[in-house]
Amino acid sequence: MASSDAAEPGTVRPGGRTARVRTAVLRAAGDTLAEQGFHALDLAEVARRADVGKTTVYRRWGSVAALVADLLTDMAEQSLPRTETGSLLDDLTANADLVRRTLTDPRQGALFKAVIAAAMSDPRTAEALHRFYEVRVAEWAPCVREAVERGELPAGTDPAEVIRAVSAPLYYRFLTTEAPLDEPTATRAAHAALAAARAGAYA
Amino acid sequence: MASSDAAEPGTVRPGGRTARVRTAVLRAAGDTLAEQGFHALDLAEVARRADVGKTTVYRRWGSVAALVADLLTDMAEQSLPRTETGSLLDDLTANADLVRRTLTDPRQGALFKAVIAAAMSDPRTAEALHRFYEVRVAEWAPCVREAVERGELPAGTDPAEVIRAVSAPLYYRFLTTEAPLDEPTATRAAHAALAAARAGAYA
Repeated sequence: MASSDAAEPGTVRPGGRTARVRTAVLRAAGDTLAEQGFHALDLAEVARRADVGKTTVYRRWGSVAALVADLLTDMAEQSLPRTETGSLLDDLTANADLVRRTLTDPRQGALFKAVIAAAMSDPRTAEALHRFYEVRVAEWAPCVREAVERGELPAGTDPAEVIRAVSAPLYYRFLTTEAPLDEPTATRAAHAALAAARAGAYA
Repeated sequence: MASSDAAEPGTVRPGGRTARVRTAVLRAAGDTLAEQGFHALDLAEVARRADVGKTTVYRRWGSVAALVADLLTDMAEQSLPRTETGSLLDDLTANADLVRRTLTDPRQGALFKAVIAAAMSDPRTAEALHRFYEVRVAEWAPCVREAVERGELPAGTDPAEVIRAVSAPLYYRFLTTEAPLDEPTATRAAHAALAAARAGAYA
């Protein structure tokens, strides 16, 4: 794509050139983060890799932090809808397995490592990462809310805390050990969160 | 301290000059990490800050990754012994509160952010960080083992997994939300881990 003819955001239909530019730039940013980490991210290099004009990238994103924030917004928008099995244990297990598959996927796992690392030192990236998890937790919270309504969990159980309790041991294992994130680990995370919720730990 | 007269490692008594040099260098490395992050760490600058000769620092640590690995070894050695209350819930709550206080301490919290970020991109730092958590988990695991022996938890419960289950939600909250790591959060982490352990989730 040429360097200076991209339309301003919002001036073309979704799916048009603006959307194609964003897709290409975010893909290039994600690839760079996954392969080389946050400190290797550079707007000019992302533009080159995306085959998009530098001017477009500078005008539209302006900074590496803004680009990563937009990438995280896109990841939240693109991420999978929750499973609805009608069984809370099965829903939580599906959630745990989705987290497990994301963190063990070579590109996605490396990408998450890069954005978590970036969030440790850059407040704007931290804010964007926190919003990403808010969106994901909000997507899955209804399965807990419905279980509370069905009387399967104590009244007053905080649905978001139960969803976070499923992810927490998987991320902790990912960050602090060499141990593999395998299916039994994901299943155990779902069982543990459910047992604690039933005992009223999140009420 | 002068730059070229430090003894070789192991040639002076513990508490002598070698130990004093290590203490000063690790303190300077920790301060730099906490204030500026991993990417600001530089052996020459650490030597200057520690008032230790550059030659000594280069000879003894050789690389930034080796220096951070030694800092993590020292942090594991210096960290507090477990609490022994005789009650598993009280022990787990003390553990949760120690993790909470560490992560919310301005210097320690920033230092953990820096080493977690470094571990995301540097395998040697990751290995050192994993060893740090292994040491900490091994320090606290006996309170769970003893509770299993007293019959308070299902036979076959994995003590290390219960200890990790206490820390996991605290680290997850620290990394993925703006929410404060307060005392009720620590207490809830201990209660949730205990409830899940009682239900057999870690057996």
